[in-house]
Amino acid sequence: MNVDAVLTARDVHGPTVDGKVAVVIDVLRATSTITTALANGCTGVFPVLSPEEGHELAASFRPGSYLLGGERGGLKIEGFDLGNSPREYTPEQISGRALIMTTTNGTLAIRNCHSSYRLYVSSLLNAPSVAKAAARHGRDVMLVCSGTHGVFSLEDAYCAGMVAQELRAGGAHLSDLAEACRIIFSGYSTAPLDLLHLAEHGKELLSLGFPDDLEYCARAGSLNVVPVFTEGRVAAEAS
Amino acid sequence: MNVDAVLTARDVHGPTVDGKVAVVIDVLRATSTITTALANGCTGVFPVLSPEEGHELAASFRPGSYLLGGERGGLKIEGFDLGNSPREYTPEQISGRALIMTTTNGTLAIRNCHSSYRLYVSSLLNAPSVAKAAARHGRDVMLVCSGTHGVFSLEDAYCAGMVAQELRAGGAHLSDLAEACRIIFSGYSTAPLDLLHLAEHGKELLSLGFPDDLEYCARAGSLNVVPVFTEGRVAAEAS
Repeated sequence: MNVDAVLTARDVHGPTVDGKVAVVIDVLRATSTITTALANGCTGVFPVLSPEEGHELAASFRPGSYLLGGERGGLKIEGFDLGNSPREYTPEQISGRALIMTTTNGTLAIRNCHSSYRLYVSSLLNAPSVAKAAARHGRDVMLVCSGTHGVFSLEDAYCAGMVAQELRAGGAHLSDLAEACRIIFSGYSTAPLDLLHLAEHGKELLSLGFPDDLEYCARAGSLNVVPVFTEGRVAAEAS
Repeated sequence: MNVDAVLTARDVHGPTVDGKVAVVIDVLRATSTITTALANGCTGVFPVLSPEEGHELAASFRPGSYLLGGERGGLKIEGFDLGNSPREYTPEQISGRALIMTTTNGTLAIRNCHSSYRLYVSSLLNAPSVAKAAARHGRDVMLVCSGTHGVFSLEDAYCAGMVAQELRAGGAHLSDLAEACRIIFSGYSTAPLDLLHLAEHGKELLSLGFPDDLEYCARAGSLNVVPVFTEGRVAAEAS
């Protein structure tokens, strides 16, 4: 089994993931939010590319059965129910409901990976569980770091490295890029919050007033849910 | 001062390096060879993009005053004097002579950086000296990893991280990508040869029969020469 990586959502095209197991990562904060929502009873997350697409899709749902969530510029979108802070997605808010979601980088990465054999969604919260699930297929794995506005994000590479480390322990071969991610993870394996504070996007979220989100997103391995994307929807994989 | 990085020669365009100090890196082996040739008395290295361009340029030199060097597929080019093994460039061979050189990745990276404010060439051999020279200009620095055939190379990122570490110690701000390179360097700071053995391109050179080249290219900080590219030629910067 070979493990490779791409560093931004825009670098993903069909051939990058065709027939492979893709693992989409956007630690700050889309995939941390998706992971949290599903762990808290969300019935499914529908990634959409724009607020307009979100409202269109919402029209097909029964009132009260869904929430609109996401961000532009890191902040809640006007007319939406929730922003992109995973801590907003409490069981009280999201249990038993669908989530229609649009974010700047993470949802684009998910949509760009539609031709993969299997598409998992990972954050630091659930990376060990996703790694185990990804390994089960015996296929090549592509770690898809979403990045921020088309630019490399350190925290996504760190998370990719956490998954790569697990896959390598199981005998997988890592490409140079996957190996680089693994070394980045190794350098901060016991200090995920330090890594998030070092990252540009982490600093940006601090300046926007989200220090608790960084602390939360750094809780590596705290959730077991394995989000998988099929037919337009991310849902918890049956274990 | 801001320090950023690009991961392959093909990612370099004018705006990437305009007005900045560029540091071109191709550890295995173009920039290790250029560094060695200059340290051993070569009068100047002329990077060309093809063997044909090399022969054309050679016609303007006095016989005996130059050597043709480089590789395709890691091996010496037919009709050339030397290959791309830095260990071939002994004082006996290269002292007092020019070197006309073409390689698959490194010479392309140098040529793509022509619009930079100042263009240095670094390998592990001379990275500490190049970092000091780059810092002196007080301008933003772009670390240009050549990569291999358009794909990321772990050893180039490691060398970029060695330069980034020095610049950061002097107070420079690192982008996420430069920080990632620095963390990769930190993970193997005392074991450069281990890193070269881990890298895909290192393994390829082992299979081609160049284990001594890896051992040589891993001698971090062993040479003080600072190669600088001006007017089509790489020469040692006056200290």
